[in-house]
This record gives sequence, structure tokens and C-alpha cells, in this order.
Amino acid sequence: MNERSEGLRAELDKVGLECMLVTRIENVRYLTGFQGSNGAVLMTPDAALLMTDGRYREQANRQAPGWDVLIYSGSMVESIEKILPYGARCGFEVTCRYDSYRKLAKTLGESRLEPLDGTVEKLRVVKDAVEVKSIKAALGCALKGFAALREKISPGMSERELAAELDYRMALAGADSPAFDTIVGSGPNSSQPHAPISDRRLEPQDLVMIDFGALKAGYRSDTTRTVCIRTFDKEQEKVHDTVASAVEAAMEKIAPGIEASAVDAAAREVVAVAGYGERFTHALGHGVGLETHESPTISSVSNDVLEPGMIFTIEPGIYIEGWGGVRIEEMVLITSDGFEILSESLPREIRLQP
Amino acid sequence: MNERSEGLRAELDKVGLECMLVTRIENVRYLTGFQGSNGAVLMTPDAALLMTDGRYREQANRQAPGWDVLIYSGSMVESIEKILPYGARCGFEVTCRYDSYRKLAKTLGESRLEPLDGTVEKLRVVKDAVEVKSIKAALGCALKGFAALREKISPGMSERELAAELDYRMALAGADSPAFDTIVGSGPNSSQPHAPISDRRLEPQDLVMIDFGALKAGYRSDTTRTVCIRTFDKEQEKVHDTVASAVEAAMEKIAPGIEASAVDAAAREVVAVAGYGERFTHALGHGVGLETHESPTISSVSNDVLEPGMIFTIEPGIYIEGWGGVRIEEMVLITSDGFEILSESLPREIRLQP
Repeated sequence: MNERSEGLRAELDKVGLECMLVTRIENVRYLTGFQGSNGAVLMTPDAALLMTDGRYREQANRQAPGWDVLIYSGSMVESIEKILPYGARCGFEVTCRYDSYRKLAKTLGESRLEPLDGTVEKLRVVKDAVEVKSIKAALGCALKGFAALREKISPGMSERELAAELDYRMALAGADSPAFDTIVGSGPNSSQPHAPISDRRLEPQDLVMIDFGALKAGYRSDTTRTVCIRTFDKEQEKVHDTVASAVEAAMEKIAPGIEASAVDAAAREVVAVAGYGERFTHALGHGVGLETHESPTISSVSNDVLEPGMIFTIEPGIYIEGWGGVRIEEMVLITSDGFEILSESLPREIRLQP
Repeated sequence: MNERSEGLRAELDKVGLECMLVTRIENVRYLTGFQGSNGAVLMTPDAALLMTDGRYREQANRQAPGWDVLIYSGSMVESIEKILPYGARCGFEVTCRYDSYRKLAKTLGESRLEPLDGTVEKLRVVKDAVEVKSIKAALGCALKGFAALREKISPGMSERELAAELDYRMALAGADSPAFDTIVGSGPNSSQPHAPISDRRLEPQDLVMIDFGALKAGYRSDTTRTVCIRTFDKEQEKVHDTVASAVEAAMEKIAPGIEASAVDAAAREVVAVAGYGERFTHALGHGVGLETHESPTISSVSNDVLEPGMIFTIEPGIYIEGWGGVRIEEMVLITSDGFEILSESLPREIRLQP
């Protein structure tokens, strides 16, 4: 993990800081490898400390070898004050809670605190080889789970049972948990991009949107398929074909050096030409890694430029209230000379059983 | 839900405010019933608005009937500025992110913002009848799931398989998801109060600590059992008996009007007298509701006093690094003249199959 904390020191150097408090748990994970739910990193010129509470003593020492682990009892801020060099300025993350900031400011003095926005996140945008492997491992659990699920989907099953079955199969395939609440939107429910789970039972001609991901060792996957169980009509097929074509249009654009907004535009145009422009109500994609949604952003207003090592989703969708919706979501890795579709082995067709 | 927003208005009145922005998602849920992952409530003298983004249009209207739903695109802060009466001061929650606060302050001016700590949380400490029912429903899913699991636990099963099986059974019993990552600590792993899941396989004489909860319609349960699968030795039995006696000692103390710290002390004394005082490394319990951990706090430093309608855990534990650990966690509801153990039907013995 040393390379990552060195990367952070280099970023701090650019803004004239030697000390930083990292509180966002995914950033703590990134720097140290620690996977507990409570922890922070304090960098000073002399030290790089992982701070957590007594519940995580064993886990911190095991998951963050090479890091000094400070178990604090009582106030973390008091420990920080003791460790920071006298008078030193300290960066903190703007994602921290307002009340945490206030406590820090009260103890250290506002003038010693420097708000930092995206400093560790910037390092996380490009995944290193270990991270690519971790994300592929998480995705592997999800895809294995989905393959096991496919054989079990049938009319009469409820959305809740389908999600339970998928989560179970992902866990048996090695996932630590779902990366997020599995989304199963069936029939008219599929018109909600984030349909809450219900007890609605699947009917033979339902569109069923399944958005699922696995969490494994801190890393996540995120993919979506929309299928019809037995039969489908012309409009369902047309909408599904349109979304699939939008995915293809995005893929034709993707390459290192390309602007993310151009990729979004390519997919959006296909949807618009088919007459569904207003039904594609969200961005085309987002980075995936320690968080389900992280940089880069693939949208019309994104300033991101694609770089080797970026991993993100391509997920156009068409949503028609009262009728239903279709979304297809792939995961893509930018390589030095092109890209790899990480989710390629997941069948994309509307037919559940080909 | 009207009674709850009236309760909030009364709290605001006490501090001389007419407007408040509620951003903590559990508080938004409490006030409106909305269960999406992104939303905020804005109270003004004339309006009570639920604000969310386009993904949740249908869901917000369905789950929060009686609330005006504002779908914002772009900046939520700009919408807030337009809606707030000219010059009006507005309370905000200190749990919000520092950068959200900064955006608000930049747009509205710092002097119009009043930090509020625990204003909605205060209302949530005492559960109303609807909430008690919701928590019982969540707990019901968890207990049904655990009952189905018991028959399946056997040596050779991995911690991961056990957790997957329990999560699956809870979901089939109606849970929307686990309330938190199910903890399964087996053998020496059980010495970590929050053991991360592993592929370790259960052995016949392992202590297996299972901490599990269900989420249903926004509300949560939280219970723990520690069992031996086939056989157990004298020390395992002694530690388990000690923890069970600590639960009993707490229960003898619990009543409306009693200080939470006195309940903690009663349990802690039993553990200390048995010689394990230093091995009980956390608070005795915590409130459960829309969050897994909320008020009241049952600990030595708590200032909370038990009141009818409070729901909290009683969960003494003994953790011995390298050997293992035992925790038993019950859920208790304070009634007008005593209490109800909500998790009473869950067998507490060390024996898995009696």
C-alpha cells in the first residue's frame, strides 16, 4: 500500500501541506487496506497512522500491515491534537460531517484546517493492477450468481424472491454482500430506474430489470440486465434493441483520450433518434471501485477524459411510466490502446433462455 | 405522518425557528415515509416539501402521500433559496456534510443558517405505535430466518455460507435486506466483536457468534446469539452463562424512569465478578429503529433515562483474543409499567439443537 500513501503525500505537497486527516471510509480503505466500518488516517511528516476503535483492533492489524494502528477510546480529535506537530496545518476532507469539522476546528483552531476536495478520490480514479483484479473478482461473484439465478427465474416468482435468490447465489459465489440493494423492477415497476423491491409476482411477458452488484474485499461491481421471461412484444423488443444499440454506440466511441461527454452523447443520440430521448433520464455511466458510484462521470456535463485504468459503467435506459423500462449496464476498463468489457460474458439479449 | 412534522414544528418553535432543512436520510424517512436513498425535507411556515431527484419521482409520490414532492434537477441549494421566505433563518442538521454546509452558506449566507443537533433524532427516541409495529415486523423476518438457519448449521459449513444462508432466509421471510452486514465469527474469530466474514469452516466445538438483523420498510432489528454446534467445554459454558446472567441482571434493572447507565452497571458487574470485566469492551446497548444504532445509549457514560416507547438492545459480551467470544443481544421495548423482550422467542442457550 506504500505507493498509495506516497501518491497522497505528492498530492499534499502540491498544495503545500504535510499533514492530512482522511475520514472518508473508502479512502481509508484505499490507503490502508482496512475494511472496518470506522476508521481514519492521519498523515504527518513523521507518521502515517490508522486510527480506529477497540472493536477493530485485530482486524486493523491484520488488514493494514505496515501501518501503525492507533486504537482511540473517547475522542479521536484529542488523539489527533496530540499527534499533529505543534502548530502544523492539517488538510481535512470536505466530505466529513459538519459536526466533525466543528469539533476539529474547536480543538485545533480553524486557521490550522485546510479543506481538501477529492484529494484521495483523484488517486482512486485510475485503478492499479491490484484494484483491477479486485473489481474483476467482485464482478466474477456477481456474474456467477446471475448465471445460477437465470435457471431459476420463472413466472410466479416475486421480485423479492428473485432478489433474495440472486443475493444468495452471489454470496455462495464468494461475495461479502451485495454491493447495493439489488434492484428488481418487473412489469410496470421497471419504469422506475431505482425501483424499490416489492412482492409483485412475475408474469410471462414482463420486462424484468435486474440491477445487481457484488462487494468483495472492499471492491464492487455494478451491472444491469433487462429480460422478458417467456415472450415479448414488438415494443418491448424495439425498446430493448434501442438500448442495446446505445450501448454499442458508446462502445464505438470509447478509447483513452476521449472525453466522457462524447461517449454520453453517442449513446444518447441513438436513443433520441429512436424517439425515446426524453425517456433516458440519467447519466450514461459512472466509475465503480471501492464505491458503487465514483469518478469518472460519463454524462453530458462531465469534464472527465478517459484514461487507461479507469473502470466505469455504460448504462443507457428508457423508462416509460405505466408501461415499463429497459436498462442495460456494462462495466468497462480502459486499457492503454482501447478497452475491455469486463461484463462481456453476461448475455445481453431480451430473451431469458436463448 | 402529520403528527411527526407537527412534532418537528414544535421543536423548532422552542429554538425560535420556522424553517428547517432536514438532510439525514433516516430523518427524511421518519417525517415523510419516503424510503429512497436521496432526499431532503424543507419546512417553511407555509410548506413542508419532500425534495428528491428524478429517479424517485414515482416512489416519492407513493410513499409520501400528503407531502408536496419537489423533483430538483441540478442544484438542490438553488431550489431551497427560491422556496425559503426572503431573509428567513433556516435550521440545518449538524450531521450534514461539510461541503453541503458550505454550499448552503455560500448561497444563503452564513448568518441565515442555524446548526441543529439531534432535533429530529429527539423525536425518534420514543417510538409510536406504527414504529413499534414496523420494528416488530423487521424482527419477525430476522427471527423466522434464524429459525430456518438453525436446522442447517453444521460443522464444515463456512462462515460465509452461514451468513449467506441466514440472509437468504431472512429475505424469504420478507426482509428487504439485512439491516447490516451479518456477522458470523466462529472459533477464534468470535473474539472480534465485529468479525469480518471469512471462509473459515465451522468445527464441532466452535463458539459461533451470529449478529444479525433485518431491514423492512425502513425499520431494523438487531440481535445476537452465540452457540456451539455439537459440544462445548467448561470454559465455553462458563463464559456463555456469565453473559446470559449479565443479560438477566440488566433485565432486572430495566423499567421506565431508570437511568440507562444503571442498567449498564448491573450487567457489567456480573461480568466483572466472574473475572471477565476487562473483556467486556463495549457499551451494553443502543436504540434501534430507522438506524441500527440510534438513541438511547445504554452505557456507563449515558445520560439517557428509560421511557415508554424506547426500543434498544441489551448485548453484553466477553471477548478473549485467540480463544473466542460470546455475545447475547436482545431487543427490549419499554412499556408504561415495565418492558417487553421483543426477541424473547429466540432461544438463548449455548446448545444449537436442544
